[in-house]
Amino acid sequence: MTNTKLIQNCAVLRLKDDDSAVIEAGQDVLIRGDKIHNIRPTGEIDASTVDEIFPADGMVCLPGMINTHAHIPMVLFRGLAEDVSIARWFNDFIWPLESNLTEEDVYWGAQLALAEMIESGVTTVADHYFHMDQVAEAVQQAGSRALLGWATFSNQGYDVLQQTADFVSRWQNKADGRIHTIMAPHAPYTCDDAYLKAAAEHAKQLGVGIHIHASERLFQTESSLESRGMTPIQVLAETGILDVPTIIAHGCGIIQEDMPLLEQANHVGVAHAPKTYLKLGGDMTPIPMLKAAGIPVGLATDGAASNATLNLFEVMRLMTLMQKWIPSDSEQMPIGQALNIAFRGGAAVLGMGQSLGQIEEGFLADLMLVDLSGIHHQPVHNPAASLVFNVQPPDVKTVFCNGKVLMHDRELKTLDKGHIIQQVKKSMERLAKRVPEKRIQVYNP
Amino acid sequence: MTNTKLIQNCAVLRLKDDDSAVIEAGQDVLIRGDKIHNIRPTGEIDASTVDEIFPADGMVCLPGMINTHAHIPMVLFRGLAEDVSIARWFNDFIWPLESNLTEEDVYWGAQLALAEMIESGVTTVADHYFHMDQVAEAVQQAGSRALLGWATFSNQGYDVLQQTADFVSRWQNKADGRIHTIMAPHAPYTCDDAYLKAAAEHAKQLGVGIHIHASERLFQTESSLESRGMTPIQVLAETGILDVPTIIAHGCGIIQEDMPLLEQANHVGVAHAPKTYLKLGGDMTPIPMLKAAGIPVGLATDGAASNATLNLFEVMRLMTLMQKWIPSDSEQMPIGQALNIAFRGGAAVLGMGQSLGQIEEGFLADLMLVDLSGIHHQPVHNPAASLVFNVQPPDVKTVFCNGKVLMHDRELKTLDKGHIIQQVKKSMERLAKRVPEKRIQVYNP
Repeated sequence: MTNTKLIQNCAVLRLKDDDSAVIEAGQDVLIRGDKIHNIRPTGEIDASTVDEIFPADGMVCLPGMINTHAHIPMVLFRGLAEDVSIARWFNDFIWPLESNLTEEDVYWGAQLALAEMIESGVTTVADHYFHMDQVAEAVQQAGSRALLGWATFSNQGYDVLQQTADFVSRWQNKADGRIHTIMAPHAPYTCDDAYLKAAAEHAKQLGVGIHIHASERLFQTESSLESRGMTPIQVLAETGILDVPTIIAHGCGIIQEDMPLLEQANHVGVAHAPKTYLKLGGDMTPIPMLKAAGIPVGLATDGAASNATLNLFEVMRLMTLMQKWIPSDSEQMPIGQALNIAFRGGAAVLGMGQSLGQIEEGFLADLMLVDLSGIHHQPVHNPAASLVFNVQPPDVKTVFCNGKVLMHDRELKTLDKGHIIQQVKKSMERLAKRVPEKRIQVYNP
Repeated sequence: MTNTKLIQNCAVLRLKDDDSAVIEAGQDVLIRGDKIHNIRPTGEIDASTVDEIFPADGMVCLPGMINTHAHIPMVLFRGLAEDVSIARWFNDFIWPLESNLTEEDVYWGAQLALAEMIESGVTTVADHYFHMDQVAEAVQQAGSRALLGWATFSNQGYDVLQQTADFVSRWQNKADGRIHTIMAPHAPYTCDDAYLKAAAEHAKQLGVGIHIHASERLFQTESSLESRGMTPIQVLAETGILDVPTIIAHGCGIIQEDMPLLEQANHVGVAHAPKTYLKLGGDMTPIPMLKAAGIPVGLATDGAASNATLNLFEVMRLMTLMQKWIPSDSEQMPIGQALNIAFRGGAAVLGMGQSLGQIEEGFLADLMLVDLSGIHHQPVHNPAASLVFNVQPPDVKTVFCNGKVLMHDRELKTLDKGHIIQQVKKSMERLAKRVPEKRIQVYNP
């Protein structure tokens, strides 16, 4: 017997092809197994045969949030690299700190991050890090959905690249299909062309995509043009990366000349992490140019060492505010478009636009219930505006992923928060130490 | 007998003259009457004779937040003017909507706003609106601190100006000294010079200051220079406004040529509301230029019709992020400076820098306790960074103002949240109606 759940009398966010968003009040949502089975006006679905009922008066039902680019175990380094330049951030802080990481650190760091994400309604994450078996185990435990890639640099050699391909095979479609995998060469400035080609070959043979940092800032594009006469996006095209589905992290340095390559690519999506760009003084992903060309854009937190938190409501808000502010035009990035990018855009970046990111029949049952009764929303003239500009993570009350309950009434159901924090605290002192000249990589793009 | 309260075993935020911030763990804070009496390492203060004890293990004790420019009853219009230009925002939405307001609306709107502010640790607000007797009554009830000004336009005439001066006399130093008052001519583009002069005369005679919108955007400065050969700041100087203590709302159009006037002024502070500027596509207050000249800058929400919320933690974060992003320099606006602007800057803008905005002996007992045990702060390597980049309003657990408890363990002690929301909801439909050509003013700066 397939388990059924009924969310009763909520308002449902429906996202439209014209980038508008409608919130339909008085709806019931029936979950059957891992899918959304039906959405009907309250009372029309027979509740008598349903296994579990979730009363949701006054709640808005949203798809789960999709974090299209993160390094989730980096929550371990939260607050350790503040008020420093991007070069110092990498070379004097993060890359030295990462030399401290053990597999066990990554396991508990990933659990901590998954708990934080569930508490703010994030059900899916495209994660790009090291010791990814531990991240996969944490995802399996948390009940979240993930697209996991094991990051590599070319100075680690081809054996390590092969090991990351083995990780792809080992975890593809595991955890009831919640875990997908991807190849994850770090970036064109840390992987030479031959290494990128080899990563693309692995991806083709494995039938997966590539998740890579590229064109993170305009100065990387300029520096790449100067040193080798090609933009980082041209490098991705030349090395065969763009022949497989590709997630480009950041893409803030994408220029008009890159657009034909992205349009002709197999499938490209861009992960947009504005809080990190603001905090580190970077550029902004050229969202209007990408949208005009039909290239999907999704929201991302990057790691918490740059983003401070893993809260995608804040990221959605910052994207919206910046897209209005940069052109000095408050009509830009209307609320409906922001919500479409957050949910449908995120799903499309992950190549899952047909099954994820919308509340429609047959879509995966990744959902959250958001309570707008808090005083910071009142009076609720415009619930869609509240979702973009007012929501605080504690407004997220209940979270479903793949049809299972991950949080109900703010109580985590799959992860033991107290135990996770205890485990992480044990290693805090060791994790914060920096040994001169001990770092995993050098930043010099 | 003066009431005493002891906050036990908290970490205390201490703000330094060099714009740094230190968080001192293991402290007890003794409140005596309306003042901070003593701060000592935990255990050194004799707890046996204290009236009330507040255990605060794991909490950070901060000064109450200071909102240096708001129109708090505008929470009533939250979400009603979205994705529109600034001209349409005023002329087609806000000024028509404001023609609906009754005294009773303003009373409940103010209560709603004060409740939202207390829930996010805001204890003081400089409010600039209409029907200010009702706002004052709401402040009296809430237990908050406020600097209240009744907004006027010159087309309302001198009788109305006199009435706003009468309001100043009526409420100055009321509510145990928590309410201060101020003259509040709306702006140089809605008040002619004679009216500004008359407002300044009233202020001088009453011994109060002036709270005014000025130089809100660069285009206002340009338009003023073009139409009359003076910047809005020069208009303030010429009309005698700058001869009394002045709060300038926004000041995003302040230019280098204005600086000598601001430096020579009686006392000027600038209210910075970055969420509103981002959302409406405005300019940013030139904080580095103002700081370099010693002009205090404080945080502000403006009204919730533009800012969506009254959350000053978010405003502090947006200020910090933008001050790093605009110059592409992540070393700018370090954490300590952000915290100093939020607390000491806010107090200085209100002319209360000697009694408010710091946790020091003899300062007013406006305090909050913030819980950093939430998973979005863990592990807490850097509590000051968490305050700027991670705090969500529900982390604020307990709020004191003038030595009284306004919220404890998230429960409001002076306001009845359910009743307020009920009262506001009753008028929602009427408040949202717009009658063509019925508006309180026209925006054409």
